[in-house]
Amino acid sequence: MRDSEKEGAQLPAPGQPEHAGRRQFMLRGTAAAGVLALDGLRGAAAADTAGKAGAAAWTHEQGRPIVSPPYGMPSSYESDVVRRATDLTPTPLSSWSFTPLQDLHGIITPNGLFFERHHAGVPAIDPEQHRLVVHGMVDRPLVLTMDDIMRLPSVSRIHFLECSGNTLTEWKGPKEKTVQGTHGLLSCAEWTGVPLSVIAEQVGLKAGVRWMLAEGADAAVMDRSIPIAKVLDDALLVYAQNGERLRPEQGYPLRLLLPGYEGNMNIKWLRRLKFSEQPFYTREETSKYSDLMPDGKARLFTFDMEAKSVITSPSGGMRLGQPGYREISGLAWSGRGRIRRVDVSVDGGKSWQEARLQAPVLSKCLTRFRMMWNWQGGPAILQSRCIDETGYVQPTLAELVAVRGLNSVYHLNAIQSWGVAQNGEVSNVHA
Amino acid sequence: MRDSEKEGAQLPAPGQPEHAGRRQFMLRGTAAAGVLALDGLRGAAAADTAGKAGAAAWTHEQGRPIVSPPYGMPSSYESDVVRRATDLTPTPLSSWSFTPLQDLHGIITPNGLFFERHHAGVPAIDPEQHRLVVHGMVDRPLVLTMDDIMRLPSVSRIHFLECSGNTLTEWKGPKEKTVQGTHGLLSCAEWTGVPLSVIAEQVGLKAGVRWMLAEGADAAVMDRSIPIAKVLDDALLVYAQNGERLRPEQGYPLRLLLPGYEGNMNIKWLRRLKFSEQPFYTREETSKYSDLMPDGKARLFTFDMEAKSVITSPSGGMRLGQPGYREISGLAWSGRGRIRRVDVSVDGGKSWQEARLQAPVLSKCLTRFRMMWNWQGGPAILQSRCIDETGYVQPTLAELVAVRGLNSVYHLNAIQSWGVAQNGEVSNVHA
Repeated sequence: MRDSEKEGAQLPAPGQPEHAGRRQFMLRGTAAAGVLALDGLRGAAAADTAGKAGAAAWTHEQGRPIVSPPYGMPSSYESDVVRRATDLTPTPLSSWSFTPLQDLHGIITPNGLFFERHHAGVPAIDPEQHRLVVHGMVDRPLVLTMDDIMRLPSVSRIHFLECSGNTLTEWKGPKEKTVQGTHGLLSCAEWTGVPLSVIAEQVGLKAGVRWMLAEGADAAVMDRSIPIAKVLDDALLVYAQNGERLRPEQGYPLRLLLPGYEGNMNIKWLRRLKFSEQPFYTREETSKYSDLMPDGKARLFTFDMEAKSVITSPSGGMRLGQPGYREISGLAWSGRGRIRRVDVSVDGGKSWQEARLQAPVLSKCLTRFRMMWNWQGGPAILQSRCIDETGYVQPTLAELVAVRGLNSVYHLNAIQSWGVAQNGEVSNVHA
Repeated sequence: MRDSEKEGAQLPAPGQPEHAGRRQFMLRGTAAAGVLALDGLRGAAAADTAGKAGAAAWTHEQGRPIVSPPYGMPSSYESDVVRRATDLTPTPLSSWSFTPLQDLHGIITPNGLFFERHHAGVPAIDPEQHRLVVHGMVDRPLVLTMDDIMRLPSVSRIHFLECSGNTLTEWKGPKEKTVQGTHGLLSCAEWTGVPLSVIAEQVGLKAGVRWMLAEGADAAVMDRSIPIAKVLDDALLVYAQNGERLRPEQGYPLRLLLPGYEGNMNIKWLRRLKFSEQPFYTREETSKYSDLMPDGKARLFTFDMEAKSVITSPSGGMRLGQPGYREISGLAWSGRGRIRRVDVSVDGGKSWQEARLQAPVLSKCLTRFRMMWNWQGGPAILQSRCIDETGYVQPTLAELVAVRGLNSVYHLNAIQSWGVAQNGEVSNVHA
């Protein structure tokens, strides 16, 4: 984990336009904070000053009692930090909602804000009644209860999940105003479940098995074909997310997790696995979730989510206050492994600086990157560009369109630009 | 990260009483699952079988629409997975609630289930009004707004938090029935905030500074003295937890995080930091949160949470079903660094086997351990024992009491025993 050495509060080197040593950073950066002459005050007196500064009614009255509520919720001051639905679908039953990336920090997405994509709404499944059928080209077909599954050896892993349609509005011009709209079909959690390799060994795969069908118990009966190599590599039967059992909208009581693969393949409300020689060419992999190329042919089975990054702060819809130092922060990820490096530009890609990566940098997981920036008050164009451990470099939109054309819906992983105006307003631009 | 090699589904070696190769494990372990003869059925027919097996009404009707609610909640089938308050305190304003460890998986605690300890209830603080005063032996005292703090360079780290009073009921005999009661003042999250070393550099510490006071804005005005070495090492000014802003009961909008130190020192609703030559000997570190020794003297400033582990499944209050293979799973942690190893016993400590540790094994973080166990149906006593990277071995209760006596309230980190009865009932025992 060599990248771990990059994390920590490494402030930029002195004397550079965008860089400043700690002392320089300090003198400029916190001028805005106001400096009170508190020297000489004793503890109680200073606390009193702090209390007055904060109009701290809360220090003078008892607060809310314990376990109220027993399952906690965010502060009422954070009530606008919520998932927001798309306005592109005719029904809220087959639709999607976006994670508010602009308000999040670190890499974990709280379960209440994890993005949603349903094809027939969220079923209310009784876990006692739910069954997983495992059959096809196997020696010993099985029907498993949730209790059966949870007795098997489990693992926990932190992985991102991204809808293949994430950023789909941005092919032909900047559309969505915020990073929640452009990139919010992206979340990350600690998943716990049983490796599918364990299930495969339980049922005994027959010679010649090359694919597995996974099928959901929702009214859409979502189904996808998965190559056997992926099944035996790192696929999981997941029953828990960020510690607790899966949320209903994430597949309660059981989902498939295919780390790094496009979101729709990670079948929710999983009820059936069937092993076979050939893929099943389901509607979801022929009509839907294929990529139409410039020559009119469609690419099928484009499983991997390729390397991508985005600056989440500052981002579209924010407004910078006073000029001075602030942290630029964002996320990078790759369906093919670890993020090796992220570069940030504040001049629309003319020059780049390497951002620091938060350790641990995990495979097929969000990686938080950060860079201090001295905003001088003028216009700027912020971009991030990541490189994954395979050496793949996140493309510009022009580079992507040159290969893919403009018939595509899915798999837009181009560099995102945020324009900063003279007055500090930040907006979605193509640059 | 050599320990990472231990993770994954390493099933036990063949021919051992507690061990079985995969084939042996398979044949015995899933007999209970029932084996249906599904061979020869086509996909649709098998799906129908699965539907009938699951009485899947949910497959035949549309589910709940998108973003309902916009901030998601767990399934109604998980409504008993909640924090529970102690019955030992006369008021719910100064009290604590426990995390339901028996129902959790992996290492992350969802924010809604993170344990609580308040001394005067949960204040409702307006983040716009909140201020942090930094003063004392500094060159440039500061009053910081939340906006000021969030512009500074940040880091994210996954750390456990444990109340020094965790397990306090268990000194003289088994009291609490479940692991939620015995060990539930323990949680773990990804925290994001500004290293205190950055703040220290902003204000400029004067020569001779050796301590820092941290003070809360709640009605209890909780305050503790922290050694400057800890402040400059890994202390954080935290504003986010598991991605989103801190919850009210975790100190919204700002708390101190002192990785590995006892919970009460991680001051919530943080409003003041004062640098000094001497500790402040506050009530919380003289009358409270000191450890009374057998000779009648009290140990002060017992900061570190020493290495500790507990099996969370099976644990008190559960009932094993049919004999056969199942996974034993639990948590290990140390305030002094990484967990090096966890051993598990099923015979009350007569023999031990090394458990597998889930990677990544992080410093001052929960580590999930797992081991397959073939329960033969008879009585058993389950124990776990951890060793941290300093070589410290988690003690038995007898070893701990030999040193500490029975006057103590805090810092009980002894090995926990769960008794399994002939009928499969699991209970808290001292063994």
